[in-house]
Amino acid sequence: MKFVIIGGDAAGMSAASRAKRNLPDMEVTVLEQTQDVSYSACGMPYNIADPGRDMDDLVVRHAHVFREKQGIDLRTGHRVERINRGIKTVTGSDLQGAEFEIPYDQLLIATGASPIIPDLPGFDLPGVMALKSLEDGKRIKDFIRSRNVKKIVVIGMGYIALEMCEALRERDIEVHMVKPRPAFLPWMNTALSSVVKEEVEGHNVGIHLGHKIERIEASGHSLKVVCPDLVLEGDAVLCAIGVKPNSEMAARAGLELGPFDSIAVDNTLRTTDENIYSAGDCADAYHVVTGQKTWVPLALRANRAGWAVADNVTGKRTELTGIAGSAVFKVFGLEVARTGLCADEAEKAGFDPLEVTVQTRSRAHAHPGSTTMHVQIVGDKKSGRLLGMQIVGREGAVHRIKAPSVALHCKMTVEAFSQCDLAYAPPFSPTWDPMLTAAIQFVKKSGSSPISLPRPQ
Amino acid sequence: MKFVIIGGDAAGMSAASRAKRNLPDMEVTVLEQTQDVSYSACGMPYNIADPGRDMDDLVVRHAHVFREKQGIDLRTGHRVERINRGIKTVTGSDLQGAEFEIPYDQLLIATGASPIIPDLPGFDLPGVMALKSLEDGKRIKDFIRSRNVKKIVVIGMGYIALEMCEALRERDIEVHMVKPRPAFLPWMNTALSSVVKEEVEGHNVGIHLGHKIERIEASGHSLKVVCPDLVLEGDAVLCAIGVKPNSEMAARAGLELGPFDSIAVDNTLRTTDENIYSAGDCADAYHVVTGQKTWVPLALRANRAGWAVADNVTGKRTELTGIAGSAVFKVFGLEVARTGLCADEAEKAGFDPLEVTVQTRSRAHAHPGSTTMHVQIVGDKKSGRLLGMQIVGREGAVHRIKAPSVALHCKMTVEAFSQCDLAYAPPFSPTWDPMLTAAIQFVKKSGSSPISLPRPQ
Repeated sequence: MKFVIIGGDAAGMSAASRAKRNLPDMEVTVLEQTQDVSYSACGMPYNIADPGRDMDDLVVRHAHVFREKQGIDLRTGHRVERINRGIKTVTGSDLQGAEFEIPYDQLLIATGASPIIPDLPGFDLPGVMALKSLEDGKRIKDFIRSRNVKKIVVIGMGYIALEMCEALRERDIEVHMVKPRPAFLPWMNTALSSVVKEEVEGHNVGIHLGHKIERIEASGHSLKVVCPDLVLEGDAVLCAIGVKPNSEMAARAGLELGPFDSIAVDNTLRTTDENIYSAGDCADAYHVVTGQKTWVPLALRANRAGWAVADNVTGKRTELTGIAGSAVFKVFGLEVARTGLCADEAEKAGFDPLEVTVQTRSRAHAHPGSTTMHVQIVGDKKSGRLLGMQIVGREGAVHRIKAPSVALHCKMTVEAFSQCDLAYAPPFSPTWDPMLTAAIQFVKKSGSSPISLPRPQ
Repeated sequence: MKFVIIGGDAAGMSAASRAKRNLPDMEVTVLEQTQDVSYSACGMPYNIADPGRDMDDLVVRHAHVFREKQGIDLRTGHRVERINRGIKTVTGSDLQGAEFEIPYDQLLIATGASPIIPDLPGFDLPGVMALKSLEDGKRIKDFIRSRNVKKIVVIGMGYIALEMCEALRERDIEVHMVKPRPAFLPWMNTALSSVVKEEVEGHNVGIHLGHKIERIEASGHSLKVVCPDLVLEGDAVLCAIGVKPNSEMAARAGLELGPFDSIAVDNTLRTTDENIYSAGDCADAYHVVTGQKTWVPLALRANRAGWAVADNVTGKRTELTGIAGSAVFKVFGLEVARTGLCADEAEKAGFDPLEVTVQTRSRAHAHPGSTTMHVQIVGDKKSGRLLGMQIVGREGAVHRIKAPSVALHCKMTVEAFSQCDLAYAPPFSPTWDPMLTAAIQFVKKSGSSPISLPRPQ
C-alpha cells in the first residue's frame, strides 16, 4: 500500500506523520516543491517584527527528522506537475530538471494556496512581495534589512495585511494600506470594524479605501502604487489581497472543484476520485451552520483534515463535521474574533437574519483596567438559531469566541446560549458576560422570549 | 397584585427591577435587613487591595434610585423573621424594633447565604472577621487601616480566601492560610492544584494544610489560631471556610430544602409553595450535567434567577435550564477555571469517568511570551459525553472555559468537542487549542475513536 502526498506543509505532513503512526509499515512518500516542511506559517509576521530573531525559529520539525525518525520518504524540491488517474501515478520534475513518475494506491493533494497577484503592470518588479511560504517570509525580512526599508505600501487589508502592518510598525516602518473596495473589513459589522480601523489609524498607519490599483511603477530606489486619484510611494510593496487554492492540477485531472475553485471533498476528505483525497488550504469544507460547502484556508482545519485523511487511508474511517468559520487575529492592542456567519452571509444562505450589536465593559463594575467590549450577534429570526458572532476588544475577545463556536457546532438557539453558565469573576467580565448581554438583547429584539437586557453591572 | 421580596441583593433587586419593567403597575416591595442593595460583592477583595479606593465605589445602584426612578417600595433595615403561608404575610421588625406585617400575593425569598463560622472558642473575638456583605468588607478594610495590620491568618482556602490572600499580599500584609483538610483545592486534579499552590507559595504565603483549628486566642493586640501542632499568630483572622444558605426561615415555614439545606426550587424557581419563589445564594438549582439538584451560590445564577422569577410572577413563564458548575478566579498571576464535574463528582453522579490532564503552551511554536497551560478533562467512558473541564494558566484559562460550559449545556461528547472549530492565531494558542489537545487525548485513551494526540506545534 503506497500513500503519496503532494505538498509537505500543515495538511501534508500531518497526514504523513499520522499515517506512519497508524500503520508503521505503510509506504508514505511526500513530494514537496520547496525545501521547507512543517513550519509555523502564521508566525511569520511576528518573526518579521523582530529583527533579532532567525526565521528558521519557525521550523517546527526539520525534513531529516521526518525521514530518519519517522521513516517518511520525504522528497523536497520535487514539483508534481500531473496526476495520471488512469494509471495511478504522479509525474513531475525535481530541482535539477530530472523527471519522475511515482505510482500511488492512495493520493493526497495538499498543495495549499497561493497569494493572489493581480495581473497588472509592475507587480513583477523587485520589491513587490507577497507572504505565504517561509521563503517569502525570509525574502521580505532580508529585503527590509538589506535595503533599510523605511516605508512600505500594503495592498489589501485582510488578516495577513493587518498582522504585517503591526509587524512593520513595530520596526518603525511607515505603512500605508490601500484597497479597491470601500469597506474596511467587509464581513464585519461597521460598529465593530470602525473600532479596528481607529486602532490601526491610531498607530499612524495610512488607510486608503476605495482606490482601484492601476499599476506599480519603479521610481529610483522606490516604488509607486498608482491609483486614479492617489499615488503611494514606498521602498517596498506588500501584496496581501488574499490567496487562491492551488487546484489547477486537480482540475486538469478532472476532479470536481468547490467554492472559489477549491478542491471538492466529502466529509472523509475524499475527492470525486475514490483514491484521491485533498486537505489543507487547497480543499473545501462543509460549514456547520449552512451545511453547504465553503472554503476557509486556515491552519487548524488543515491539520485536522490531514489527520482525518491519514485515518481514512489507514482504514480508520473518520468523518469531519466541518468548520464554523472561526477566525481570530490581533492587531496592535485589539483582539478581533469571529465565528459563523455575518448578516450578509446568513441572508445568502437562506436564513432570515437579525443582527444585534452591544457595547459593554471587559471587567466588572468598578474593577480597574476595564475597557470596552464590542459584540455582534447574528441569529435566525424564524428558528431563533445562533448563526454567528463577532467580538472586538482589548482583552478576552479571542478566547471568548470559542464558546459561540461550540454553540454553532451544536446548532444552539440564541435563547439557549443566553442561558449558558459562563463563568464570572470581576477581573474578567461583568456578571453577565458581554456575549450573554448580546444574546439577551437579540432575544429581546427578536420578540421570541421574555428575557431582556441586563442592567449595567 | 403584590409582589414581596425578602432580600435586596443580586437576586432580589434583579427580580424587583425586572418585575417593574415587565409590569409597571405591579406593587413591588423589597425588605432588606441591611442598608446596602445592589453592590458588586465579588469586587470586595479587589477594593480591599487598594487603600486609596472607597468601598462605596462598589455600589452599582443606590437605594433611592430604586425607589424614585423605578418605583420600587424598597425598605432597608427591615428584617423579616417569619413567613405566614396560611394568611400570606411576612412579619418582622425594623431597626427601631417596630414590628411589621406585610401581605403578599407572590413572595420571593432571596435571603442569600452567610459565612460559616465554626462553633469554637474565640471566633467571636474582635479582629476575627468574615467577608460577605458590604458591611463586612468595610469592617475588614477599616480594621486593616486603623490597626495598621501587618499579618493576617486566613482560615479556609476557597475562592474568596485566595482572592483575599492576593488582596492582602498586594498591601504587603503577611498571610498564613490554614485549613483542616489535607487537599489544597480538593475538587481540582492535583496536577493542576499543585500549580496553583506553588503560585500562592511563590508570593510568600504560608499554606498550612491538614491542621484542625481548635480555638482562637487573644494575645495582647494580636490573635492566635491554635491547632494541635501549630499556632499561627496575626493582627487579624479572616474566616473564609465557606457559606451556607440562609434558609432557616423557609424551613420553619415548611418549605422543602435541597442540597446543603438550600431552598428547593423547580426550573421556574418556585418552591414547594406555589406562591413562593426563591432565587440567589439561598436556593438550589439543577445541574445540566447530572440533571440532579445542586447548590452553587454564584452571582450570575443569582441575577439570572432573579429575572426568571420576575418573568414568572408577571405572567411570562420562564424556565431556567440550570447551571454547569462553572467557576473562575484569579490568584496572583494565574487564572483558574472549572466547569462541570470533577472525577469524584462524576463518579458520585453515576458516570464512569475517565480523567485526562495535558500540559501545553499558551501560544504558538516560537511565539514570544508563551507560558504553560494545564488542562484537565473528564468524560464518561461509556457514552463518551463531556462531563467537565479545568484549566490553569497565566492567560486565557478563564475565557476558554466558556467553550466547554456551552458544550455541557449541549450534552456534547468529547469527540464532538474535539472537532470544534476553535479559532487559532499565534499570539493566543498553538494551532490545536489546549482544550482540543486534552479532548483528543481523552478520545485516544478512552479508545472510542482513532484520533490521537497532536504533535507539538
